[in-house]
Amino acid sequence: MAAISLDNIDALFPAGLSEEQKARAKTAFLKRLSLEAHRFYGGKLQTAPRCGIFSPPDFNVWYTPGVSAVSTAIREDPALSFDITGRGNLVAVVSDSTRVLGDGDCGASGGIGVMEGKALLMKYLGGIDAVPLCIDSRDADGKPQARKIIEFVKMVSPSFGAVNLEDISAPNCYEALDALREECPIPVWHDDAQGTACVTLAALLSALKLAQKSLAEAKIVLLGAGAANTTIARLIIADGGNPANLILFDSQGALHSGRTDIQADTREYRKWELCLRTNPRRVMDEAAALAGADVLIALSKPGPDTVKRAWVRGMAERAIVFCCANPVPEIWPYAAREEGAFIVATGRGDFPNQVNNSVCFPGILKGALAVRARKITDGMAVRCAHAIADFSARRGVTPDNIIATMEETEVFAIEAAAVAQAAMDEGIALRPLPADEVYRRAMADIASARAMFDSLQNSGCIKPLPEEIVQRALRESIKL
Amino acid sequence: MAAISLDNIDALFPAGLSEEQKARAKTAFLKRLSLEAHRFYGGKLQTAPRCGIFSPPDFNVWYTPGVSAVSTAIREDPALSFDITGRGNLVAVVSDSTRVLGDGDCGASGGIGVMEGKALLMKYLGGIDAVPLCIDSRDADGKPQARKIIEFVKMVSPSFGAVNLEDISAPNCYEALDALREECPIPVWHDDAQGTACVTLAALLSALKLAQKSLAEAKIVLLGAGAANTTIARLIIADGGNPANLILFDSQGALHSGRTDIQADTREYRKWELCLRTNPRRVMDEAAALAGADVLIALSKPGPDTVKRAWVRGMAERAIVFCCANPVPEIWPYAAREEGAFIVATGRGDFPNQVNNSVCFPGILKGALAVRARKITDGMAVRCAHAIADFSARRGVTPDNIIATMEETEVFAIEAAAVAQAAMDEGIALRPLPADEVYRRAMADIASARAMFDSLQNSGCIKPLPEEIVQRALRESIKL
Repeated sequence: MAAISLDNIDALFPAGLSEEQKARAKTAFLKRLSLEAHRFYGGKLQTAPRCGIFSPPDFNVWYTPGVSAVSTAIREDPALSFDITGRGNLVAVVSDSTRVLGDGDCGASGGIGVMEGKALLMKYLGGIDAVPLCIDSRDADGKPQARKIIEFVKMVSPSFGAVNLEDISAPNCYEALDALREECPIPVWHDDAQGTACVTLAALLSALKLAQKSLAEAKIVLLGAGAANTTIARLIIADGGNPANLILFDSQGALHSGRTDIQADTREYRKWELCLRTNPRRVMDEAAALAGADVLIALSKPGPDTVKRAWVRGMAERAIVFCCANPVPEIWPYAAREEGAFIVATGRGDFPNQVNNSVCFPGILKGALAVRARKITDGMAVRCAHAIADFSARRGVTPDNIIATMEETEVFAIEAAAVAQAAMDEGIALRPLPADEVYRRAMADIASARAMFDSLQNSGCIKPLPEEIVQRALRESIKL
Repeated sequence: MAAISLDNIDALFPAGLSEEQKARAKTAFLKRLSLEAHRFYGGKLQTAPRCGIFSPPDFNVWYTPGVSAVSTAIREDPALSFDITGRGNLVAVVSDSTRVLGDGDCGASGGIGVMEGKALLMKYLGGIDAVPLCIDSRDADGKPQARKIIEFVKMVSPSFGAVNLEDISAPNCYEALDALREECPIPVWHDDAQGTACVTLAALLSALKLAQKSLAEAKIVLLGAGAANTTIARLIIADGGNPANLILFDSQGALHSGRTDIQADTREYRKWELCLRTNPRRVMDEAAALAGADVLIALSKPGPDTVKRAWVRGMAERAIVFCCANPVPEIWPYAAREEGAFIVATGRGDFPNQVNNSVCFPGILKGALAVRARKITDGMAVRCAHAIADFSARRGVTPDNIIATMEETEVFAIEAAAVAQAAMDEGIALRPLPADEVYRRAMADIASARAMFDSLQNSGCIKPLPEEIVQRALRESIKL
């Protein structure tokens, strides 16, 4: 991003550090650098034109009097708004900042940095325009309300082609998603749940193949039973996993049919469904559940000591460990490998095997937008996971490279085509298009987005970060 | 905007057309061209980066894990969100599309084209980022509700530095603005009312000076008593106009203290205030009111026959006629001049003397954002009007050039500095800054925005509109 490249940040740190020291210093460095870089640029997004302003009289076309024709055309046929405004390619990234990427409740404005990042990724990876909307969902008592989120999204939906819900605490996120999937006229996607589930399933399919195991027979333990892991469990089952081989844990222990606390809370119906179907032997603790398990999917508290070394040691041969808490994984990857894990994945881009929604949400949303899907179903997410796994297999996988990364541009267009086809197969596409046309448009839009980034950087409109800011962050993080 | 320049569109039409035929053909041409140009580009806005992505690992800074530092920093000090995200320079353009630029209710999505245009103008003219949010404000009965608009804006305010309300029908627009000015933690601006009032006052000050008349003595008739004209009347009075010299008309006739219909409707309290203060002699019809009047400010139904030629004929010497309905003025400018008007202004950019909020809202909002004004008061709007009039006088005014146009870049920075100073003088600036620093930053941001437009156009990221689209629109509009 500047005179110092981040392409190999390990090399920036003294050789004498232990693995754990290096991992901590790296996190500290990236955080310090992030804060200063955000301050330097004043955030990450700006408004740009999609059309030409070659001289000021062009505004007579883009604004009054010409634009009147756009208003009246949409009045006569509201569906035109998807074609003659940016709406057809525009996503609202809506969060109430009550559960921001591993940092919990950050106050209504606290999620803006993350949502700006999300919008930036949508443009860079999927050629999609996006608007971060961090909202205040609290009632007079200060309690966040799903009802307010639902009402807000319905009110704003006439401006957007799709909605991406993000970093909303459970159980409001379930209630909001389930209500909006049915009641909102545009597709609503909950990236923490559906996005994480889709990419995790993709990575799991790939890892199981490398480990020569099958989804139908794998014993899988899920640590954490929030929006992401409960949706992962649902997709695993939908894709042929055996519910009897699944054990989930929340902060109160294992999920099973005796968990009357979950049964009693009607808002937790998603968890209760899983209580009824998984863990039939009522295994109670993590060590016992993981003894002989093939897969651990941890999406719980940031680590590094949330997952114990001994638990990993007890797993089956060729164990698969996904430790995806942000910003610090539940166990450091090197530690999991020292305990015998065959494949280790995290949510971070600075370790191998990043299992991050970034590799799926731009493609899923692109596909849903392209054919104007009315919603995004579990079936579409499963099809997307297979598209990612197949794409990864075609270009070759290894235990340290189980899944396509976001640098593999084509994967997003492949996903878009698969998701669009799934929507058409399910009969929920308002504007059917051949899948190869969806692929072609996605590739073109991504190329346009990259050309824009290049243009702004090459022309000096966006300047590199001054080297001294990077050096200062580096010095301070090594000192820690 | 293409091979055919719009800089002199009069020259595109056959010489044989009458003034009226030419005006109609011009409007038809701009509308047709607008619709096709919007379709060609797929809307007017896109998301662009403000920061550099020099290689994909930069996302470890812009997104997880680095961005965590941004979330926690804002949690500790929410005011930081104005500095380390785009919030400090970001405006929500909120409309329920119930009164779109002279086209009335266009359905919830119907205003997107106008709001995109507004956002484009904010960037181009004020270096401000903006997001169009067309919302559904209707309750179950299909009636737009001020309460829903107010709730929506309060919920979304944590993401923005200011809010621009736009094209909301009366009386909801009064109620929304008055409530939000007090209850919303960021400044809320109603451009149709406050923006139009500010720029109209600026143009009026300039025109009166040219006509050697004074605001305190001028007899002023306002045709239309919607959000814009009632606010214009209020600002005129605030700036020294004599309420006894003012007569307003709504669709039911003249406003005066006998209008019990207005008194009975509590939502119309702004109109009722004016009933009590203006038109003491209870003049009842337009012709009588305009007999000997110095100024006509029409902001009512689109013309061209809303204002009768005879009315203009009856006005005082050196009469000033503002006919600002969109898209077609209440009387064609050539007709008003034929009836003796000394100065004629419209809301359109393709006639001389455009009195359009475009020349003020980017500067006002820039000033309010710069010092984090808690609200935008009438006093700030009056100060802005004087800043525009003074700027215009310094560079020279004539009857066909009474006010700075949006091509005069510096006027926006001048406005920003004046508005910021007014906010500081009123004690409502949360982050005071010297006015010359506000001026300097505004000039720098505008220059950056223009550089971005140039970069995207010069690099081919934004292509010119194909000539055949322009030619077709031209042919079809001449045929009419």
